[in-house]
Amino acid sequence: MQVLSAGSKKETMDIKTSIKQIAQDAQLASRILSSVSSSEKNNTLLMMADKLEQKRVFLLAENAKDVALAQKTGLHQAMIDRLTLKDETISYMAQGLREVASLPDPVGKVTSMWRRPNNLLVGRMRIPLGVIGIIYESRPNVTVDASALCLKSGNAVILRGGSEAINSNLAIASILHGVLSKSSLPLKAIQVIPFIDREAVSALLQLDEYIDLIIPRGGEELIRAVVDQSKIPVIKHYKGVCHIFVDARANSEMAINIALNSKTQRPGVCNALETLLVHKDIAPEFLPLLADKMLSAGVVLKGCEKTRTILKNIEAAFDADWYAEYLDLILAVKVVDSMDEAIAHIQKYGSLHTESIITEDYANSQRFLNEVNSSTVMVNASTRFSDGFELGLGAEIGISTTKLHAFGPMGLEELTTTKFIIYGNGQVRT
Amino acid sequence: MQVLSAGSKKETMDIKTSIKQIAQDAQLASRILSSVSSSEKNNTLLMMADKLEQKRVFLLAENAKDVALAQKTGLHQAMIDRLTLKDETISYMAQGLREVASLPDPVGKVTSMWRRPNNLLVGRMRIPLGVIGIIYESRPNVTVDASALCLKSGNAVILRGGSEAINSNLAIASILHGVLSKSSLPLKAIQVIPFIDREAVSALLQLDEYIDLIIPRGGEELIRAVVDQSKIPVIKHYKGVCHIFVDARANSEMAINIALNSKTQRPGVCNALETLLVHKDIAPEFLPLLADKMLSAGVVLKGCEKTRTILKNIEAAFDADWYAEYLDLILAVKVVDSMDEAIAHIQKYGSLHTESIITEDYANSQRFLNEVNSSTVMVNASTRFSDGFELGLGAEIGISTTKLHAFGPMGLEELTTTKFIIYGNGQVRT
Repeated sequence: MQVLSAGSKKETMDIKTSIKQIAQDAQLASRILSSVSSSEKNNTLLMMADKLEQKRVFLLAENAKDVALAQKTGLHQAMIDRLTLKDETISYMAQGLREVASLPDPVGKVTSMWRRPNNLLVGRMRIPLGVIGIIYESRPNVTVDASALCLKSGNAVILRGGSEAINSNLAIASILHGVLSKSSLPLKAIQVIPFIDREAVSALLQLDEYIDLIIPRGGEELIRAVVDQSKIPVIKHYKGVCHIFVDARANSEMAINIALNSKTQRPGVCNALETLLVHKDIAPEFLPLLADKMLSAGVVLKGCEKTRTILKNIEAAFDADWYAEYLDLILAVKVVDSMDEAIAHIQKYGSLHTESIITEDYANSQRFLNEVNSSTVMVNASTRFSDGFELGLGAEIGISTTKLHAFGPMGLEELTTTKFIIYGNGQVRT
Repeated sequence: MQVLSAGSKKETMDIKTSIKQIAQDAQLASRILSSVSSSEKNNTLLMMADKLEQKRVFLLAENAKDVALAQKTGLHQAMIDRLTLKDETISYMAQGLREVASLPDPVGKVTSMWRRPNNLLVGRMRIPLGVIGIIYESRPNVTVDASALCLKSGNAVILRGGSEAINSNLAIASILHGVLSKSSLPLKAIQVIPFIDREAVSALLQLDEYIDLIIPRGGEELIRAVVDQSKIPVIKHYKGVCHIFVDARANSEMAINIALNSKTQRPGVCNALETLLVHKDIAPEFLPLLADKMLSAGVVLKGCEKTRTILKNIEAAFDADWYAEYLDLILAVKVVDSMDEAIAHIQKYGSLHTESIITEDYANSQRFLNEVNSSTVMVNASTRFSDGFELGLGAEIGISTTKLHAFGPMGLEELTTTKFIIYGNGQVRT
């Protein structure tokens, strides 16, 4: 497959036309895909897994082109790492496809059904959303993961990866298409946009007639750019400023374990702990113990004034720290007078992602679960569990921090909607 | 309360500032409202019902100002009718409040709960969306209905009615506020925008930081204008081009009854029948019987070529007729060769609203229910049942014809989202 790029005005027009064609093809494919049986979809996913492993050499060679160019253009090492495919990455991708095949199919599930007084039987049935556009950055494995989840949930997908990964993404698409062409599924169920130009994204985001949902995956800048341009609904996840509130009646040892795990187990991800709120009654005893463990783990602490009267050697935290998603071994610590103050802090500075209370107090645990309306709210557990796999959704296409359609980790069900189905026997309205 | 209007640039700035204040107040109110108990909400709704009836004279006087102005400015009679409050309209509004009070509260409902292998107990709990903006036209009763549904579901609401109903809407708001001020609920739970200027709507639609959802209620033009401007998610309902497919093995009498009811019981609404698709095998026998009944009921038929070889005296239907939402006693009729052709027609020309198949064939009924992905799909029932009350949702805030978040008639549950709640006992991720 060929990477395409536009220079002139005429070529920009050509991009628009091509993108529209891609979207129209996706819509037609989605109509066929919506009633394909689970076993046909699963067989296709399993064949895709085998094919990816068989085409390992081709895939690594195409990926090497992207990596060489990225090195030449001086891309950050971290981005090059994410871009680079290895033997084991390919095995993981194949394994991912097999796992999606093993998940229950959400499509066609009747979520509830009831009888009306006039004897109509009314139910709600899950159906695919239709066409989903995924806009993402350097990781080529997203091409496989997102294709698998969309296909399993009966949606056609249009994939737009980063320009730095274009050869890898087109190589993956060609392998998946090889399998689709031998199946009963439509070839246009999966399409990778072959243009590296930004105009391609802008054009795509206007096509609300054909595309039902856009999911951007990447940094806040990418997501804001997509939201600003899109006429299509976007499921957003700006950032994860996750809190733990150590209540007056917390078990200190548990609180330290959970805070340490939440902060350090993988600091660069959105469900990592960023701000620790500590009740004033437990702070004098708790904070020195915490600081000891955190410093041993290489965590830099920043504290409010009250925290610094207890931990005298740590840096001061400013207003910006309470908003910060450090994604690093840094933790902001604030002493609060009450649970009210803790909840108000979370409402003001939080990002609606994940918050956990550590407490032995029954009433406080219930109050926190009821009153904190972030997408995931926990008692006595690590924020790192806020993840589609860990919560038992079987898969994760992203985490939504806005409330429409999906809130929190999104699995296969969140890629569907429900229609009303009605069984009648001649009823008319009077 | 005073109706406010801006002229100069400075005053436009003032509107922006005021609207932002309204939105911020709504967000703060929504945080309190989200954990108010059902009984407090219900008591408030019941008091509002009583108060509306007690303030009948005041309400009719304020409404008379709007009606007088509307007559002076030459508003359509149909719009004046919708604008005019009568004694019985006020009784209906009060009754509506009492009915919403009697519905189950969706907030706090745990929709499912499961145990993870590490013993975490994970569930999903319904919570309010937050702040909802409703933009609507002349009917003042929407001010009451929408306030009741938002309040019951724990959402703060910002109401922007038509400028022609401003005195009526402000009068209703002042009555509802009188009740709120004597309750434990926040006063800013319900706010009516006091400006009649269009800038007020434009300003509102930018405030995605404070407002979670916009629901426009009115004609297609209003809805498109809102969608084009809004940075906030919008739940849309453009139009209802509803179909009935009379299958080869339909019971003719039932098909005629249902088609007649769907078309004529209330032709001006979105769930009325607009296009009838008839299988070719039944058309010669069925169409003359249908035409007889339809013509008696004052319905004008427009037909495809094949229809007109059977019904020789009817007008021709053109491509535009298949897209048409007549909202009138007009019916487009098309003869199709197969169920495939019927489904393809619905997919091409339909609006994803409501479709019904009339058939005695088991396999065809199942196929239609499974393959037609409109928001409501029926077997042997009138399209007029596509309505929140008729389907048993207890209430209706609108009908969505887009798939994100809600699809089809929306009740109280659709004004909520779910958060994940997790009960742990010290779990960390390894």
